[in-house]
Amino acid sequence: MNGFRVEHISRLVTCAGGPKRGRAMREIGVLEDGAFVVEHGMIRAVGTRRQIAAEFSHFPALDCGGKLVTPGYADSHTHLVFAGERSAEFARRLRGDSYMDILRQGGGIAATVRATRAASEEDLIEQALPYLADMLAMGVTVCEVKSGYGLDVQTELKQLRVIQRLNRLQPIELIPTFLGAHAVPSGETAERYIDFCCAESLPAAAESGLARFADIFCEAGVFSLAQSERYLRRAADLGFSLKVHADEMSPLGGAGLAAACRAVSADHLLQIRAEDVEALAASETIATVLPLTAFCLGEAYAPARKLIDAGAMLAAASDFNPGSCCTYAVPLLVFLCCLYMKLSIEETLTALTVNGAAACGVAERVGSIEAGKQADFLVYSCPDEAFLPYFSGVNQVVRVYKRGVKVYG
Amino acid sequence: MNGFRVEHISRLVTCAGGPKRGRAMREIGVLEDGAFVVEHGMIRAVGTRRQIAAEFSHFPALDCGGKLVTPGYADSHTHLVFAGERSAEFARRLRGDSYMDILRQGGGIAATVRATRAASEEDLIEQALPYLADMLAMGVTVCEVKSGYGLDVQTELKQLRVIQRLNRLQPIELIPTFLGAHAVPSGETAERYIDFCCAESLPAAAESGLARFADIFCEAGVFSLAQSERYLRRAADLGFSLKVHADEMSPLGGAGLAAACRAVSADHLLQIRAEDVEALAASETIATVLPLTAFCLGEAYAPARKLIDAGAMLAAASDFNPGSCCTYAVPLLVFLCCLYMKLSIEETLTALTVNGAAACGVAERVGSIEAGKQADFLVYSCPDEAFLPYFSGVNQVVRVYKRGVKVYG
Repeated sequence: MNGFRVEHISRLVTCAGGPKRGRAMREIGVLEDGAFVVEHGMIRAVGTRRQIAAEFSHFPALDCGGKLVTPGYADSHTHLVFAGERSAEFARRLRGDSYMDILRQGGGIAATVRATRAASEEDLIEQALPYLADMLAMGVTVCEVKSGYGLDVQTELKQLRVIQRLNRLQPIELIPTFLGAHAVPSGETAERYIDFCCAESLPAAAESGLARFADIFCEAGVFSLAQSERYLRRAADLGFSLKVHADEMSPLGGAGLAAACRAVSADHLLQIRAEDVEALAASETIATVLPLTAFCLGEAYAPARKLIDAGAMLAAASDFNPGSCCTYAVPLLVFLCCLYMKLSIEETLTALTVNGAAACGVAERVGSIEAGKQADFLVYSCPDEAFLPYFSGVNQVVRVYKRGVKVYG
Repeated sequence: MNGFRVEHISRLVTCAGGPKRGRAMREIGVLEDGAFVVEHGMIRAVGTRRQIAAEFSHFPALDCGGKLVTPGYADSHTHLVFAGERSAEFARRLRGDSYMDILRQGGGIAATVRATRAASEEDLIEQALPYLADMLAMGVTVCEVKSGYGLDVQTELKQLRVIQRLNRLQPIELIPTFLGAHAVPSGETAERYIDFCCAESLPAAAESGLARFADIFCEAGVFSLAQSERYLRRAADLGFSLKVHADEMSPLGGAGLAAACRAVSADHLLQIRAEDVEALAASETIATVLPLTAFCLGEAYAPARKLIDAGAMLAAASDFNPGSCCTYAVPLLVFLCCLYMKLSIEETLTALTVNGAAACGVAERVGSIEAGKQADFLVYSCPDEAFLPYFSGVNQVVRVYKRGVKVYG
């Protein structure tokens, strides 16, 4: 028998019904004393415990101890394949040094690019595996991962191969993104580097078949709106789905560009313009907020509340990277969404599950507990989703299932 | 043989030399490739790896994998013995309800007092044990615990007995504090309740021998400065060491009172007056900051930087409690100290180890790695203390030793 009933659940948060926008993000489909059936790693049926027990009495039961169950989390924005670390730079910033000074002295992203170019695939894999194990223990079952620490064809492809190899070495499903336009390499101009991306690295990434998304850091002093548009149009022509690092430090209009290009997501959004809040709300582009980055930098948060109130689809992700946000702590992310971004726990759970899965381009398969989807789900030590922000920054996930198999706990 | 060498340590942070104030808090006594010897649960010698290997070659070696080692943490301010939970109140506050409204409707601390009065000792113990297991995994090896959810003789003593029983059930050493004056019970006046504490509950707690410290919530609208002084003088006469909840919500002068009463610590201090910063700096009273509470309430932080710069002894603790701060996450506490209170990692480690131990009244036995102290120490996954705030909110403790025994990892 290749199946079982999952039951004795105080509250089954299903997040059923596909990605959600605006007020609908509050609808997380809670079944009290709900149950479901897993067969061959997929969810076959969801209902009340009594219905499921009656119809599937021949299946063994998995007892969740009368606790909360939710779908697994999809972390839709990370940079987790990198070499080296930048703790000394972090300490310098604590002492008041500016990032621009550090960058001018060869630190910042340039340091990570040097280290990542020098690293072997095995080095990169071995460094990433413990991060992924930690993330899994916090309930992440799908995770987008970007390249972007090569800024040359060879290293960008190496990062993408590492993501592919990591996918076979641990349970989290990794969604690869080509971020060739993460920064302007030293000695280059932005314009010439975009020429290079359009002529060489984007086609090479497309040819490799190793990336689903293409992404660009659209920001004042990095890649302009026009350069970003040129890159994104070329990427779309090559068959990539699109993501945009938009309006993080200045209100350049990246979010509006993302909507105009039908990007799957526009990410960061701390400085998003009012008209672009409306543009996202009127589009299918997911507004992705990254509050851990704001927290780690001591900055103000993106206007997540305004985005939802305007009717946008919102996802929340970690932005784990070795510079601005060296953390993937989902419990802290949940707390920041609730207390510092003023989302309800229901909105936060939608942002982390089905909307996060949509921002990874896989919402048809994961992100909710409903018949026909993969059996990716979490069992907690608490009985109610209200505990998730209440026990602030504390991991309450005790068991993680991926495709019906217990992979943590 | 009842001993071993602890070696292969990238950086041995000893925190040796007793509790520290002001600039001296930066001195954490790092030995690169240091080592030490543990015998009968105590530290017998500390030195370089070569010295220790030569002198104690007959002892087996414990290999720390070339990683960071520090003393265990002392969390010097918690309320971790309580019944029930207040997640619904937290959700109400997220929606904008005020704490005073919740309190008027029978919620807030009154709800915890009702639940704690109704609970058996076993209920309280079973609820606290998982919290302590979590704290241990984050490196806490000494923990102060307050009563204060009874506000009557019977329940306050029950909480103290629970602390005593918990001390025998798990590895963290618990330091008991009588906090009879945590709030004014409904139907009472503050003045009459202090009469009761001085006449009945303080003497009963002293008689029981179950508490080392007495503590009071000195705050506008709760217990005045004069009432607090009366309570503290009575407690001192009965043989208690003193702690004060001081200047949390209003600049009442509690910190100055704590210094005048020779209290071991003055805690919270968000609203401390400038003259009381000086008073603490000139005293032996430890200034204890609780940044997780400010973070969980979305408030400004205590002026930790000013306190250190003035020459005070500073400790940092969790304030774990079911209302304002339902977290004991040490990695988050470290991050808040560094990024939001502008302490260096060295000052933060002093605040969490030897100064925290001093705020628990046990710095002569624990809080540092030096000959003659208990072998309470932590082994990390990282090589350098700079990683502790850099990997923000992520637990990097992988092994915990208490009195020379591995109790986690």
